[in-house]
Amino acid sequence: MKKSPFAPKRAAKMPPINGVELAVTEAGIKYKLRTDLLLAKFTPDTVVAGCLTKSKTASGAVEWCRNNLKSGKQARALIVNSGNANAFTGAAGEKSVVNIGATVATTLGCEPGEVYQSSTGVIGEPLPVKEVLGGIETCAGQMGEGTYQTAANAIMTTDTFPKFTSRNCQIEGETITLNGIAKGSGMIAPDMATMLAYLFTDMPISQPILQKLVSKAVEASFNSITVDSDTSTSDTVLVFATGKAAISPVVDEKDVRLRPFKSMLNRVMKELALLIVKDGEGISKFVTIRVKGAKGKRAAKRIALSIANSPLVKTAIAGEDPNWGRIVMAVGKAGEAADRDLLNIWMGGHLVTQNGGRVPDYNEAPIAEHMKGETIIIEVDIGLGRGKAEVWTCDLTHEYISINADYRS
Amino acid sequence: MKKSPFAPKRAAKMPPINGVELAVTEAGIKYKLRTDLLLAKFTPDTVVAGCLTKSKTASGAVEWCRNNLKSGKQARALIVNSGNANAFTGAAGEKSVVNIGATVATTLGCEPGEVYQSSTGVIGEPLPVKEVLGGIETCAGQMGEGTYQTAANAIMTTDTFPKFTSRNCQIEGETITLNGIAKGSGMIAPDMATMLAYLFTDMPISQPILQKLVSKAVEASFNSITVDSDTSTSDTVLVFATGKAAISPVVDEKDVRLRPFKSMLNRVMKELALLIVKDGEGISKFVTIRVKGAKGKRAAKRIALSIANSPLVKTAIAGEDPNWGRIVMAVGKAGEAADRDLLNIWMGGHLVTQNGGRVPDYNEAPIAEHMKGETIIIEVDIGLGRGKAEVWTCDLTHEYISINADYRS
Repeated sequence: MKKSPFAPKRAAKMPPINGVELAVTEAGIKYKLRTDLLLAKFTPDTVVAGCLTKSKTASGAVEWCRNNLKSGKQARALIVNSGNANAFTGAAGEKSVVNIGATVATTLGCEPGEVYQSSTGVIGEPLPVKEVLGGIETCAGQMGEGTYQTAANAIMTTDTFPKFTSRNCQIEGETITLNGIAKGSGMIAPDMATMLAYLFTDMPISQPILQKLVSKAVEASFNSITVDSDTSTSDTVLVFATGKAAISPVVDEKDVRLRPFKSMLNRVMKELALLIVKDGEGISKFVTIRVKGAKGKRAAKRIALSIANSPLVKTAIAGEDPNWGRIVMAVGKAGEAADRDLLNIWMGGHLVTQNGGRVPDYNEAPIAEHMKGETIIIEVDIGLGRGKAEVWTCDLTHEYISINADYRS
Repeated sequence: MKKSPFAPKRAAKMPPINGVELAVTEAGIKYKLRTDLLLAKFTPDTVVAGCLTKSKTASGAVEWCRNNLKSGKQARALIVNSGNANAFTGAAGEKSVVNIGATVATTLGCEPGEVYQSSTGVIGEPLPVKEVLGGIETCAGQMGEGTYQTAANAIMTTDTFPKFTSRNCQIEGETITLNGIAKGSGMIAPDMATMLAYLFTDMPISQPILQKLVSKAVEASFNSITVDSDTSTSDTVLVFATGKAAISPVVDEKDVRLRPFKSMLNRVMKELALLIVKDGEGISKFVTIRVKGAKGKRAAKRIALSIANSPLVKTAIAGEDPNWGRIVMAVGKAGEAADRDLLNIWMGGHLVTQNGGRVPDYNEAPIAEHMKGETIIIEVDIGLGRGKAEVWTCDLTHEYISINADYRS
C-alpha cells in the first residue's frame, strides 16, 4: 500500500512516562516480519478511563473492557494485537478473550479485572490464540524494552504510518507528560471511529474526573472524524494515568490544576484523531468542514458529518471539482433545520454560494486552484442560529475501492 | 459511459393511456443531439398524487409541486427537463420556476396550479430558461407525438438506459392500464432516492385514496432502494390518473375494486425502483438485502439500509469477497437492537454466520461462487422479533468514483 501523503515529515519525540513499561513482539498472528502484539504494564494504582464503540455488535474484547471500566478498579496491563479483530468468532472468540485476560494477569501478577485488551484486524476469522499467548510470554520477558514508537507500529493494520504524539504541561513546577498512540484508517466514523487510541500520563487524578474529561475530549476529536461512515465493532479509546508525577492528586472537578491538563488532553486527542484521518484509506485530500449558524451544536455536527460522509461530496473533492451543489444537497439530507435561501458556502476561504445561489461575481479560478491542493477547507453558514461544529475527513478515491474490495486476500 | 449490465434485454410494451398526450424535444439545455424536455398534457379532471424529497434544501420545482399537490386541484400538465436541476440558483431559479409554470399554463390553456414540473441534472448552475421556453413551444406543436419510451429517454441524465414499464389489471371487465417512466442512477437513497418517476393511469379514483396508495407503495419501492446514501434535492414521484376507463370512480377506501389496482401500483413502483438500482452508477452487482427477526418493521428497514449503504460492504461485494464480518459491523452500527450472538447470515442462500460466529463446517467455495455472479442476495436474521424488510442496492466500484469525480466536466 502506498504511504499516505499526509504522513508526518518528522516523528514526535516520545519521552517515557513514569509507571508505564512497554514491550512488543512478532507473535505471527497474521502478518509476517511485522510486530503485531503490544503489552503494557502499569504501576499499581494506575487509573483508567475510556470510551468504547457504540456498535450493537461490539467485539468480545470491547465488552471485556466495558466490564472492567465499570468496576472502577486500577489498571495494571494493556494487551493489543493486530491482524485479527477476534470479532464474530462465536463462543471460541469469547473463550479467547477470557484466556488472554487470565494469561496476562498471571504473567504480570495482577487480577484479570485489571487487564485491558483490544484486537484489531480482519473480522470473522478465528483468532490464533496460541500465537497470542506465546507473544505474551515473549513480551513479559522483555518488558520495558518497547517504546511508544514501536508500540504504535505494533497496533497498525492497514495504516500506512504509525501514529503517536506527546505533549506536556507544567503543574506546580512539575512536568506532566501525556503520550498517545493510535491506529485506524478505514471503517472510521463516529461513534466511535474504527480506531484504537491509548493515552498514557503520569498525572495524579481521580477516575471519575478523568472519565469526565475523556468523554468530553473524545466528542471533539475521535467523534469528529469520519473516513467512510462505517463504525467498527472494536473502537476503543483508553487513557491510563499512573499518578507518578510529584504533585498531590486532583480529586475535585473545580481544582484549577485541571485546566492545563485538560487542554493537553484535548490537544493530544485531536492530534491523534487528525493523524487517523490523514491516513484515511486512499486519501488524496485532507478535508476540514466547518459549520456555523445551525440551530444548535448537535445540529451543526450532524450537518457537518452529513457533508463529510456524502460519497458525492467526497468523490467531487477527489476529482478536484468545486461542486458546491453537492454540499447544499448534503446539508439538505442531514435532517436538521436549514433554509436553502439563507445558506452561505465558502471553499478555501472564497465565498461560493450566497443566500442559496452562486455568488453574482463568481470566479471559479481561485476555487479550482484551492481544490487542486492537498488541504481542502469547506465552510458553511446555515444562517439560522449559533450552533457550530468542525469535523475532519478525506476524499473518496479509486485507492479506497482498491484497498477495500480486496482486503481479505 | 458504459451501459449497465442490468439494462433490460427486452423493452416493455407501452400502450397509450386514454387522456394522456406526450411530446419531447431537443431543447438544448445542456446535452447535444439528445432530447431533454418532456411535456405531458392531461385531460380535464385528471387526479394527481405524489411524494416529494424530504431534503431541507429542496429545489424550486419540488416546492412548486408540493404547493400544487396541497391544493388538491386537477393536473393538466407535466413538464420535465434534464441537464439542469435548477437547484440553488437563488432568486433567478425561483423566477424560472414561475415562468415555466406560467408558460406551460398559457400554452396548454390551463392554470399554473394545474402544472407539475421537475428539473434534473447538474445543481447550482443557472437554468437556460430561454431554451426551456422554446422547447415548450416546440412540444406544444407536436403534442401527442411522443411515446412513453421517448419520454423516458428525455428525462435521463447519467442514466445508461431509459426506464419504463407497463402493467394492466381487469376491473369490472375493463382493462385498467398503468404506465411508468423513471430516471435516476446516482444520489439515490431514501427518503426519497434521487430520482424522478411519473406514473400514468386511466383509473377513475379520488385524489385522497390515490395519495394514500401512492404513499404506501413508495415506502416499499422507491424508499427501499439506495445507491450511495445521498438524497437529492429534486426527488419526485407523481401519479396521474385520468379516470378515462369506463368504470365508475373509486371514492371509498373499502371499495373491493381497489385491490387489483393497488397490486398493480405496487408492482409498477417496485419495477421502476429496481430499474433505478440496476442503473446505479458504476454497478457491477445487483444486491438484494433481506432482514428478518428485527424488533419491528422500521428497525428491520434501518438495519437493511445500514448494510446497503455501508461502503465497506459495498466494496467487498465489488471485490467478490464474502466478507460477512462487515455485514455484522453494519448491523451493529444501525443503532437498532441487535445481539451479536443471535445473528444468522446467509449469502446466496448459504448459511455463513450462525449465532454470531462462522458456521462450524464453513465451506467458502459455494459462497465465493455466488459472489462471482451478478445478483447477490444477503439475508440476515436478527433473532429478536418479527420485523422484516427488503431493500435493493448495488456495489461500490471504481466506475462510481470515475463517474462522480468528474461529473461536471
